[in-house]
Amino acid sequence: MNPEIPLNEYLNGRKALVDQALEKFLPGGGNDPAVIFEAVRYSVFAGGKRLRPILCLEAAAAAGGKTDVVLTTACALEMIHTYSLIHDDLPAMDNDDCRRGKPTSHKVFGEGIAILAGDALLTEAFRLLGDREGMPGVPPERVLQIVCEIAEAAGFFGMVGGQVMDLLAEGGKADLQNLFAIHQRKTGALILVSLRAGAILAGAGETKLAALSDYGRRIGLAFQITDDILNVEGDPSLLGKGTGSDAARGKVTFPALIGIEASRLRAEELVREAIVSLESFDDRAAPLRAIARHILERRS
Amino acid sequence: MNPEIPLNEYLNGRKALVDQALEKFLPGGGNDPAVIFEAVRYSVFAGGKRLRPILCLEAAAAAGGKTDVVLTTACALEMIHTYSLIHDDLPAMDNDDCRRGKPTSHKVFGEGIAILAGDALLTEAFRLLGDREGMPGVPPERVLQIVCEIAEAAGFFGMVGGQVMDLLAEGGKADLQNLFAIHQRKTGALILVSLRAGAILAGAGETKLAALSDYGRRIGLAFQITDDILNVEGDPSLLGKGTGSDAARGKVTFPALIGIEASRLRAEELVREAIVSLESFDDRAAPLRAIARHILERRS
Repeated sequence: MNPEIPLNEYLNGRKALVDQALEKFLPGGGNDPAVIFEAVRYSVFAGGKRLRPILCLEAAAAAGGKTDVVLTTACALEMIHTYSLIHDDLPAMDNDDCRRGKPTSHKVFGEGIAILAGDALLTEAFRLLGDREGMPGVPPERVLQIVCEIAEAAGFFGMVGGQVMDLLAEGGKADLQNLFAIHQRKTGALILVSLRAGAILAGAGETKLAALSDYGRRIGLAFQITDDILNVEGDPSLLGKGTGSDAARGKVTFPALIGIEASRLRAEELVREAIVSLESFDDRAAPLRAIARHILERRS
Repeated sequence: MNPEIPLNEYLNGRKALVDQALEKFLPGGGNDPAVIFEAVRYSVFAGGKRLRPILCLEAAAAAGGKTDVVLTTACALEMIHTYSLIHDDLPAMDNDDCRRGKPTSHKVFGEGIAILAGDALLTEAFRLLGDREGMPGVPPERVLQIVCEIAEAAGFFGMVGGQVMDLLAEGGKADLQNLFAIHQRKTGALILVSLRAGAILAGAGETKLAALSDYGRRIGLAFQITDDILNVEGDPSLLGKGTGSDAARGKVTFPALIGIEASRLRAEELVREAIVSLESFDDRAAPLRAIARHILERRS
């Protein structure tokens, strides 16, 4: 990262790279049945920040690897993230009508197609990972390792388990330990594996992989705490959704359990620790350091 | 297959092997949150015939490979099959209350958990495929090839696309060409890839792989035609579900389009052709030949 370029501009460039690749992997038009491709594109191109793919690209860069080798994996991670949003928004789950300022998938396409759009994205992510053409020159053992780790992060002990715990916790029975567990599985696991996948594909050794994992665990939690804070006091016009929905739903959050000020302090502490985790990395980790700091300033 | 052992007995032995492995991969008890493991086990151990895993094992055997190397993949295929049943039964899809004589997943656990149980099974299937310990000695390129092919069979141009076409076709607009396309994607693709995966893992060459693929395309369609016939004139007590549901729903089926007798003849022709596809194989393909013949006699 050129220090002359502001982070926002740099991240926009990375985002454009990911969007371009997603456009190639999920082309519009000409496919049958058209509606499932429309539904998938509607959610994938709904204005996400591409945090997970960017973390994957930057972990690879920090470990000395090349971007083009991890771009396919970065897109697969965004597909898995999008699938989880579509399914979590369903009436049988969080029942959200609106996301990023737009009607949710089931509101536009109906529940059946929304469920299938999520299924298709999850499946396509693994198809991309299995396709040797997407990762030329990468040893196949490394690819299998990330298939396994990504599926683990998405499965029983990751996102699916976290969403189940979240469903069970509605009504406010969860304590702080429970809340940590929900976040670690529901959002933390995929953020962590985004970094690990980038590093593994780049051939990072154990020490660097462990450091990037520490960074990932810390920013994952910091990101979730700031998410909870924004749900209390964010600007709805920037968020693309109303605030106060967590409180209205009786959802357990960090601000609800420890208060806004303590939540903010905890997020700051986690970001500091995340940056310390990267001590042994050179300037190629500058974007990761900047992303960590940026979490505290985000408005959406 | 020992020619002295009747097919039923042989298949029961294979089924027991698969069930034992599934039990190991999806253990009951001790996992958190318990309900998602209960939901997954409820559907996986609901009395399925294990057709796909058995085809995978037998394709490997016919190609000269060992059973223990493909058992993990066989289980992954059954998990993907079960996920598709759970999601297809949802109220937003086929809205079925009953399957194999038992209430469907969403009837027992609610829609949210049923959706997540399907998600978990699809994800766990790929985790198993990525886990090197499950396939000792298999070259990782082969494993990646089957990850890619299985995801393709499950995705846009396979099961998901087929289910979308099926949803769109309800009300009876589909013609015979459309019906072939729906079946090929919705059920044919996974049956085909079950055979291919077994053969690829066993190291089958192009000729044997092509022959097993021909066999798979033919029995896949024959299986679906007999399914349609059973829905018209099967014995509900053996099927574990009522008959006539396709007609009541205005679903396009082979009997509805070409009549029962022509459907039966077509299934017989496909089975004959499937057996011809295996001409170049020795006795190790005897179970595959017997399974093909058995399709015409099945009552459930």
